[in-house]
Amino acid sequence: MSERKPQIKLGLSIAGHGYHHSAWLHPSVPPEGINEFGFYLDLTRTAERGLFDMVFLADFVVFSMVDVPKGVLGRSSRGSFEPLTLLAALAPQTECVGLVATASTTFGVPYHVARSFASLDMLSSGRAGWNVVTSFQDEEAANFGSATILEKSSRYDRAEEFVDVVLGLWDSLAPDAYVCDRQSGYLFDPAKVRTLNHVGRHFRVKGPLGTPRSAQGRPVVVQAGASEEGQELAARTADVVYSVQPRLETAQAFYAGLKGRMAKYGRDPDHLKVMPGLLPVLGGTEAEAKRRFREMQELIDPLVGLRYLSAIFGDLSGHPIDGPVPELRKDKQLATRAQLILDLARRNNWSIRQLYESTAIGNTHNTVVGTPEQVADVMEAWILGRGADGFNLLPALSPLSVQEFVDEVVPVLQRRGLYRREYEARTLRENLGLPAPPTAH
Amino acid sequence: MSERKPQIKLGLSIAGHGYHHSAWLHPSVPPEGINEFGFYLDLTRTAERGLFDMVFLADFVVFSMVDVPKGVLGRSSRGSFEPLTLLAALAPQTECVGLVATASTTFGVPYHVARSFASLDMLSSGRAGWNVVTSFQDEEAANFGSATILEKSSRYDRAEEFVDVVLGLWDSLAPDAYVCDRQSGYLFDPAKVRTLNHVGRHFRVKGPLGTPRSAQGRPVVVQAGASEEGQELAARTADVVYSVQPRLETAQAFYAGLKGRMAKYGRDPDHLKVMPGLLPVLGGTEAEAKRRFREMQELIDPLVGLRYLSAIFGDLSGHPIDGPVPELRKDKQLATRAQLILDLARRNNWSIRQLYESTAIGNTHNTVVGTPEQVADVMEAWILGRGADGFNLLPALSPLSVQEFVDEVVPVLQRRGLYRREYEARTLRENLGLPAPPTAH
Repeated sequence: MSERKPQIKLGLSIAGHGYHHSAWLHPSVPPEGINEFGFYLDLTRTAERGLFDMVFLADFVVFSMVDVPKGVLGRSSRGSFEPLTLLAALAPQTECVGLVATASTTFGVPYHVARSFASLDMLSSGRAGWNVVTSFQDEEAANFGSATILEKSSRYDRAEEFVDVVLGLWDSLAPDAYVCDRQSGYLFDPAKVRTLNHVGRHFRVKGPLGTPRSAQGRPVVVQAGASEEGQELAARTADVVYSVQPRLETAQAFYAGLKGRMAKYGRDPDHLKVMPGLLPVLGGTEAEAKRRFREMQELIDPLVGLRYLSAIFGDLSGHPIDGPVPELRKDKQLATRAQLILDLARRNNWSIRQLYESTAIGNTHNTVVGTPEQVADVMEAWILGRGADGFNLLPALSPLSVQEFVDEVVPVLQRRGLYRREYEARTLRENLGLPAPPTAH
Repeated sequence: MSERKPQIKLGLSIAGHGYHHSAWLHPSVPPEGINEFGFYLDLTRTAERGLFDMVFLADFVVFSMVDVPKGVLGRSSRGSFEPLTLLAALAPQTECVGLVATASTTFGVPYHVARSFASLDMLSSGRAGWNVVTSFQDEEAANFGSATILEKSSRYDRAEEFVDVVLGLWDSLAPDAYVCDRQSGYLFDPAKVRTLNHVGRHFRVKGPLGTPRSAQGRPVVVQAGASEEGQELAARTADVVYSVQPRLETAQAFYAGLKGRMAKYGRDPDHLKVMPGLLPVLGGTEAEAKRRFREMQELIDPLVGLRYLSAIFGDLSGHPIDGPVPELRKDKQLATRAQLILDLARRNNWSIRQLYESTAIGNTHNTVVGTPEQVADVMEAWILGRGADGFNLLPALSPLSVQEFVDEVVPVLQRRGLYRREYEARTLRENLGLPAPPTAH
C-alpha cells in the first residue's frame, strides 16, 4: 500500500478519579489523588509515554453543594486544582505532550484569559491549548454575581466576541518583535507590535499583549459545544473539536456537517480535527472485558447515579429505581448532552437504574468493551469512515485505564500504521498536523 | 547574650533584568532571559539556596505602547510571563521558598483569584502568597473596558470587599473536610464545608471553593500600598507589607504607625511583617562598590531615564537635561511613590539628569552601596531599630546581584545570628513566623 494511512490524534481527558462516576470506590484508584500534583503528573507522563497529542482538563467553576437526591452530597467530586496553574506546573516536567485547559467565556475576562494561556504556551514552548466553553450551570453563575446563567444565545454572542479578542491579543507581536540588541538599545521593535484597539458589543480591549509569539504561533483552540451556535463558533475559530458521539453513523454526520461549515469562513476542512470521546474497557478476552465492565457497574452508588440524572429529570429518588423513567418537567431547556441522554432512555425503554448505569460510565460517550484489538478495530473504522480524526480517551479509572490503553492499545494502532511511533514535533499544533495560524503581521 | 536576636525575613523581588532601569544593557545580564523559564528558575533556586522566605513577582496588566519621550518605545521592558502560571511552574521545582504573585483587585474577579491562588498553594504545599494591588494606571484600565482608572477611594472600597471575599472563599473547607473513606462512601464531609453566600456592594459570590485547606491554612497576603487606604487595608488583612522606605527615620515612623493600626482589628502587631525594599550594590571594598555603582549609572539610556519621569512630570525632553526639574502640571493626582520622588527632587535641588539617575536604580527604594559587612550593618540597624522585620531584595542586575547577595551578605547575617541557617519549616507562613490563620470552622 503506497498511500499513508490517516494518523489518529489522541487526547487524554483527565477528570479526577476517572470517567466512571464511582471510580473512586475502585480498589485501583487512589481517592486522595485528585488533590495531589503527583497524581496528575503521573497521568500526564503516561500520556506522553503513549505519544498522546495532548492532555485535556475539563472544568466547572463551582463546587456543587446541591444535595439532590438527599444524602448524596460528599459522595462524589471532581478535582480541586485550577486548570491553568496545574498545567503550568506540568509544563516544565514534560516535553512533547500538549496541555489543554478549559476557561469559560461567560465568567472570564478576555485580557486575563489571553495572557494566562499565552504564558502557558511560553512555559511549555508551544504546547498550550484553550478549551473554550460558555458554561451552562446556574450554580456556576452564582459565583460570579448572578442567580442564573445567561441564555445560550447570549452566551454564544459573548463567546464569539471573546474568542476574537483573545485571538487578536495573541497576534500582538510579530515573531521577530523581540530583538534584544544592546548595540541599538532596542529590546523590541515597536513597528512589530500590533495594538488591538478592540471596541465591540461586550468588550473594549486596547492591548497589545506583551507575550512573545510562541513556538506554535498561538495556543491551539479547542471547543466542545455541539449546539448550532457551538458548531458555528467551532467552524470559524477552532483547531480541535471534542465531540460526544456514541455511534459511528451520527459521528459521520456530525463530522461532515461541521467540516462543511468551514468553507464559508475560508477554512480548509483538514485544519479542524474532530476528536470524539472514547471510553474503552479492556480485557485479554472479550469475556474478561465484559466481566470487568460489570464489576465497575457494580460499584455505582445509586445516590450518585440519581444525582447525575437529577440535572435533567429533577429528584427521582421518590420513584421506583427499577421502574420507568418518568415524564420530563416541561419548563426545562435542555443542553444538547441532556437531550442525548433523554433520547437514549426513550429509545431503549430503560428503567431509572438502567439509565443511570448507562450514563455512569463515560456519560454517553462512546464506550467500547473488548480486547485491545477490538478497541483498535472501532478506532480504525471511525477514522477510515470519516467519523473522527482522533479520539479523546476517557479513562474509566485513573490511572489504571490510561496505563492499560498506552500499554495495550497504542502498540496495536502502531502496528496497523495508524499511529505515530515517535512525536513528529515539539509543539501541539505541529503534532496535530495543523498549519501555522494566520497573522496580521 | 541569652536572648535570641530578631530574625531577618527576606524576599526576592524579581523584575525581569533587574531593578536598574537599564539593567539589560549590562554585560552580565542575558537580555532574552525575561522570556525564558530557565532564567526565573535559576533566580528562584538561588533565592532558595540563600534561604529566602519568598520570591515576589510584581505585575502590571499592560504592555505600554506610550512613546514618551519620542523614540523611547522598545528601549525598556518588563517580563512577559503571567505571574500565577510562572510561579505554578516553579512550584514543583522548589521545596521551601515562598511564591508570591501580584493580582489586581481592580481588574480581577474574586472567585478566579481565590481559586488560582488556592491552587498554587496546593501545588507548592503551602508556599503561595497573594500580593494585593489596586493598580493605578489608565493604560491598564484600557485593557479592561475603561479609558481611565477608578479613583483611589473607589479602588480601595472595591479592594476591601474583594479581599474579604477571597479570605472567605479560602475558608470554605475545614482542614479535615476531605475524608476519602470508601467504607462510608464519603469523599468529603458536607458538614465541614462552609458556603460563603457573600452579598456586598461590589460582589455577590456564593461559594464554596472546593480547594482543600492548604498546609499553611491559606495563602499569605502581601500588600504594598502606602497610602492611608492602603495602610488601613494592610492593618486589617495583610500578613506582609512590602514598603518603600529609603531612610531609617521614616521607616521607623511607618513601621510604628502601621503596627499601631492593628489593635483596633484585634490583631497582634507581630502578625504583620514589614519588609521594605533594599537595593545593595556590593564591592569587596567601599571604593569598589562605588565604582560598580558608577558603572551601572553610566549604562542609563537618557530616553529611558526621562520615560520613568514622564509619568509624574510629563514629557521633559524639551527641557535641558542638566537644568532644573520644572514645575509640575497641576491637574495630576500623585501616587504616594510619585510624591516621594518629587519631594526628593525638591529637597536636593536636582537637575533632570540627577533626578532620573537617582531613581533609575531601585526607584526610590533604599539603595546601599558598600561592602557585604556595610550592607549587613544597615540591615541590622533597621531590624534592631524597629524600622523593618525583613527586606525585599531588589537586585540591580539579575541574576548577578542575587548571587552576590546570597554568597556574600547572607553568610555575614548568619554569623551575626540575624538570619536562619536552615529553613524552619516547609510553609511560607511558618518560615515568616506567622501563626495559623483564623478560621470560621
